[in-house]
Amino acid sequence: MTTSPEIARARTRHRVAVLGATGAVGQTFVRLLADHPWFELTELAASERSAGRVYGDVTRWLEGELPGKIASRHVVACDPSAIESDIVFSALDSAVAAEIEAAMARAGKLVLSNARNFRMDADVPLLIPEINPDHVALLQGQRSNRGWPGAIVTNPNCAAVVAAMALAPLHQAFGVRQVFMTTMQAVSGAGYPGVPTLDILGNVIPLIRDEEGKIETETRKILGRMESGSVVEADIRISAQANRVPVEHGHTVCMSIGLERSASPEEAEQAITEWRGAELARNLPSACLPPVRLAIGDDRPQPRRDVMAGGGMQITVGRVRADPILDLRLVALGHNTIRGAAGASVLHAELLLSSGAIREP
Amino acid sequence: MTTSPEIARARTRHRVAVLGATGAVGQTFVRLLADHPWFELTELAASERSAGRVYGDVTRWLEGELPGKIASRHVVACDPSAIESDIVFSALDSAVAAEIEAAMARAGKLVLSNARNFRMDADVPLLIPEINPDHVALLQGQRSNRGWPGAIVTNPNCAAVVAAMALAPLHQAFGVRQVFMTTMQAVSGAGYPGVPTLDILGNVIPLIRDEEGKIETETRKILGRMESGSVVEADIRISAQANRVPVEHGHTVCMSIGLERSASPEEAEQAITEWRGAELARNLPSACLPPVRLAIGDDRPQPRRDVMAGGGMQITVGRVRADPILDLRLVALGHNTIRGAAGASVLHAELLLSSGAIREP
Amino acid sequence: MTTSPEIARARTRHRVAVLGATGAVGQTFVRLLADHPWFELTELAASERSAGRVYGDVTRWLEGELPGKIASRHVVACDPSAIESDIVFSALDSAVAAEIEAAMARAGKLVLSNARNFRMDADVPLLIPEINPDHVALLQGQRSNRGWPGAIVTNPNCAAVVAAMALAPLHQAFGVRQVFMTTMQAVSGAGYPGVPTLDILGNVIPLIRDEEGKIETETRKILGRMESGSVVEADIRISAQANRVPVEHGHTVCMSIGLERSASPEEAEQAITEWRGAELARNLPSACLPPVRLAIGDDRPQPRRDVMAGGGMQITVGRVRADPILDLRLVALGHNTIRGAAGASVLHAELLLSSGAIREP
Amino acid sequence: MTTSPEIARARTRHRVAVLGATGAVGQTFVRLLADHPWFELTELAASERSAGRVYGDVTRWLEGELPGKIASRHVVACDPSAIESDIVFSALDSAVAAEIEAAMARAGKLVLSNARNFRMDADVPLLIPEINPDHVALLQGQRSNRGWPGAIVTNPNCAAVVAAMALAPLHQAFGVRQVFMTTMQAVSGAGYPGVPTLDILGNVIPLIRDEEGKIETETRKILGRMESGSVVEADIRISAQANRVPVEHGHTVCMSIGLERSASPEEAEQAITEWRGAELARNLPSACLPPVRLAIGDDRPQPRRDVMAGGGMQITVGRVRADPILDLRLVALGHNTIRGAAGASVLHAELLLSSGAIREP
Repeated sequence: MTTSPEIARARTRHRVAVLGATGAVGQTFVRLLADHPWFELTELAASERSAGRVYGDVTRWLEGELPGKIASRHVVACDPSAIESDIVFSALDSAVAAEIEAAMARAGKLVLSNARNFRMDADVPLLIPEINPDHVALLQGQRSNRGWPGAIVTNPNCAAVVAAMALAPLHQAFGVRQVFMTTMQAVSGAGYPGVPTLDILGNVIPLIRDEEGKIETETRKILGRMESGSVVEADIRISAQANRVPVEHGHTVCMSIGLERSASPEEAEQAITEWRGAELARNLPSACLPPVRLAIGDDRPQPRRDVMAGGGMQITVGRVRADPILDLRLVALGHNTIRGAAGASVLHAELLLSSGAIREP
Repeated sequence: MTTSPEIARARTRHRVAVLGATGAVGQTFVRLLADHPWFELTELAASERSAGRVYGDVTRWLEGELPGKIASRHVVACDPSAIESDIVFSALDSAVAAEIEAAMARAGKLVLSNARNFRMDADVPLLIPEINPDHVALLQGQRSNRGWPGAIVTNPNCAAVVAAMALAPLHQAFGVRQVFMTTMQAVSGAGYPGVPTLDILGNVIPLIRDEEGKIETETRKILGRMESGSVVEADIRISAQANRVPVEHGHTVCMSIGLERSASPEEAEQAITEWRGAELARNLPSACLPPVRLAIGDDRPQPRRDVMAGGGMQITVGRVRADPILDLRLVALGHNTIRGAAGASVLHAELLLSSGAIREP
Repeated sequence: MTTSPEIARARTRHRVAVLGATGAVGQTFVRLLADHPWFELTELAASERSAGRVYGDVTRWLEGELPGKIASRHVVACDPSAIESDIVFSALDSAVAAEIEAAMARAGKLVLSNARNFRMDADVPLLIPEINPDHVALLQGQRSNRGWPGAIVTNPNCAAVVAAMALAPLHQAFGVRQVFMTTMQAVSGAGYPGVPTLDILGNVIPLIRDEEGKIETETRKILGRMESGSVVEADIRISAQANRVPVEHGHTVCMSIGLERSASPEEAEQAITEWRGAELARNLPSACLPPVRLAIGDDRPQPRRDVMAGGGMQITVGRVRADPILDLRLVALGHNTIRGAAGASVLHAELLLSSGAIREP
Repeated sequence: MTTSPEIARARTRHRVAVLGATGAVGQTFVRLLADHPWFELTELAASERSAGRVYGDVTRWLEGELPGKIASRHVVACDPSAIESDIVFSALDSAVAAEIEAAMARAGKLVLSNARNFRMDADVPLLIPEINPDHVALLQGQRSNRGWPGAIVTNPNCAAVVAAMALAPLHQAFGVRQVFMTTMQAVSGAGYPGVPTLDILGNVIPLIRDEEGKIETETRKILGRMESGSVVEADIRISAQANRVPVEHGHTVCMSIGLERSASPEEAEQAITEWRGAELARNLPSACLPPVRLAIGDDRPQPRRDVMAGGGMQITVGRVRADPILDLRLVALGHNTIRGAAGASVLHAELLLSSGAIREP
């Protein structure tokens, strides 16, 4: 990972809050923010049931060790009046996210959302900083449309981000016209408690409710271009099939890709390895250069072996080869709770801060 | 399963041999033939190392209980002179199958092969009795070409058979033009010891060596039609991506399908449920009617829950829905060591026997 | 399995109900009772939320196919006034079992309970028909103590039943004095949804809350003897450690056993293989003879390969060998939702019916 | 982990070799030695088949990324004449270890062995530096007995090390008299390819050949005391049962422990948390202080969540509670390929170097 300590040291750390801090994605936020150079995690918010109690007592900590200084914090309510931070990372479930996230924006906070609720709204950026940092410009319209002093920025569905990151270098180099994709998604994508063991041990479930539509539409918005203050979706036809597999972390996506300008597998690999993503994103603390890497070995990427590339922020692509019908076939992999959720939001906050969209404290 | 006891009882049981009887597919043959109405398993052949020894001693029995009457048999060598049966089921690995299976055919035996070696030879039937029983007619050419008193009949790759069975009703009703398919294949497809646990526990491996080409070419031959004594391959463009997943038995295939005559998901489901397969195959002891069934529930088929449909001989199809680019999307599932290997060969022998290609004993 | 068709045919089938019919154990009852020779499953009861709705709609069916005739039944409430059957199989969770099961007994019904609530009450039989069918005599006291026209009979904890069945032949032959046991228990023991995948995939959890105490105390009651109308617990010291492992069905128990009269492994194996259990239990439809079998192979029993022995009603014991400190070491395995839950209750009802404790319909 | 940079910097790095470098334990050596402060990995030795070839080409790298500088090295033969280093880490299989390791010692090399061959020889130290660093004194006798200018030091079986580390603080504080232990061992303990997936997916195998004897005897030698130049084994009676479970890394051991001086669970926990191990081992680069930690949470230790404590060198103990028969019950966990194999040998080399048993380069 490429970090830029000069930038980091120049700043006083911003105080930030996590909404939904006790869940699986909330915990990932806690891990990623525990020692962040720009942000200081000062508020942990969760449901009424947990509010007022000690974080370590109400959280079933899933991975590694819960940092002691955080374990002893008291949980606050997901209510704007209870939260002082101006930057709010939201790991809220979509069932409650719409209401709470809007209330936070209305109260002047910048909300980095993981929920699907606002993603496809025309005035809400669906960000991947390496691909579309200019989509941040939607916030002007968002503020005037909604009269919010704050704002909401969303990150994509955890499978869409893997697909979009793998497609971006090819789309920029050759133009992607159509994609057939089949995903094999990790159980952590369903949160905790999430998938019952009796459903998935030694099994595959060929359905993740509402997932395929999200992958198809979000990918087009992510790869879209700003025009007159709006995002014009990329003109790509996408057919997605989503499956759950007994993997802990890491969504794998098999793709058959049709291009506007034909490219050989070698040319595609070169486009991927040379891609650095948008200038604005390259020196952010959570960014990884290159954002997408080629897998080593012809039987990769594999979730167990490649998911932590770049601290979980890098996408790994492998098996780039000719497609018998379209132009290319390939397999992409990314970490669904880091790159596909909490890590993405942290990167978004870094982008907004470094680009001046957030005022220095 | 539909069995036809009249036919069964009318016959004296044919004595048969299994080549490669100690391996995973060989054991499946042993299970399926232990109480077969038409065949009596009298000879168990394996490598030199095992020949002369007691079957139960040299076999690591993988599932259920090894029938006692078979456990005590002595293993014979995979040599035509050591085998009396005229019908020989071969579970041999492709590394040795070419030589031994040819020697068996040369010695007058009918070989039901699971290896890939002869599958794509123009004079060798690549059978699925419900789809192409007329391909048996290739045997005349095979005999004259090769001067064999016996013959070799092959069954398809274990993923190709799942795909071909799911496509056959659609191909016959609407004409299949192109298919994108991604497989999630069980570890038993790699035999025993097969896939090391350290490679697949909680993991996905996006490569099964040489598998994708087999799926693409075999499916076209299976769905091809006899013309002037040869098989004319079906004119279908296929792009396959093959993955190994931590599932014991059952290959799952996600497909996006383009048709000649467009069909709605409802029409496709109707075509599948009404399909009975070729007349000749319907009353065979190992056949299942219907050969393909629709899954119950919108999150099926699932290997753990559907793989044993029809005793492992039935294909389950689910999630039939419109495709955003082509016509249809669906998910198919079948048992890779029964329908995709040993059970298929047993069905072939039944077809050949009932159609007179094998003489009564 | 040994069934006694003469007995079966002689009877009109008793109508029975299942309480908690939508859960994991409830579904196992449905499967076992779907074609039972003595019982006809006519009533499916579940929580208020499901009552009045169609069983197939409110049940996430976990294994195999839900019989069509049962899928279309309407669920009734777990209320004595809503249930006509005199025999009631209860798969209720212990949180609600105490109240509902007592209400059923008060209303005159015979309750076959899977919950822990009444198991250790002095006037409630904790049955294993092969071991302690005479404990049924406690029902007289139960009726007079509680003034119930009906009665409650309980089956043991799903790990205790495996341990007790393996110990019974040794206890009867040599006297068991003390046992150290460590269990490795399947996820289905926790019901559905039960154990989250993120907790157990590739993991071991060395705690099953309250389980160890149940194993220790219940085993002593099961192996206890009737004396003056009460059960005198067996004088066995037991230390149990319980673990959850990523296995679907089948609890494995490693035991070190101290005996009153020392026995060699060979003598222990002989005692096990010769054991037939109590006379009264031998010809019941769900009974298996022998009740305990020795595993074939020195690396057995294994849950995946041995759990369905005797239709899930037989216990498999292996690795009987000398213990460096006590007398014997061995490994026992049994099916936790069949032998350890629903199948046990069905067997109890069969025992009560055949022994006259239940009147003929 | 406690490292002592002063010591580290003071030394020129010793050049070392790894024997059996392509296997699972060999790869763990490569990972641990890639950036070691005292040792420089300069030679990778493997079987004749691999000798002369490039390491990256002949190794199926199992975890993380193979360091580039090591990938391009040429593999040498496991022959003293082919190896310059004086310190040789051996990951050889026991089938070949006896001969090759002896040849290395005869050629003047210090061999840090992972094989079982020499472990129980009276003149060979079976080391755990935190417990028995004084056992190094056996090397004098070894040299005179065998006439080797070099020497062989061994590390314990990967389950024995977990047990011994958990027992050491209790043995030193209260005297351990007898132990019943049941292990649940990870598949990586069987090397690569190791355990076939078809054997262990969703399963438990209650046999690891020869393992139980090793655990019982090695634990006594490890906890033994030096007396007149020999090790007097600890007078502890041990009964071990070993199981394989579907876990990648981490052996879990359930123990029932009898003490000479009775101790409450609280006293036992205090003895564990206060234990620092032998003075000599505390500042070694690979040592972890404390060597044994108490798990956080009453359902721990769990392999997935605790195995990497202290970089894989720390043992985690949990569920310390009273035993109904003996004194204490507890669960211990350790990393089998780090603490139980490669990491242990590296720690031994550090001990020998820091204590002067190895000359400075």
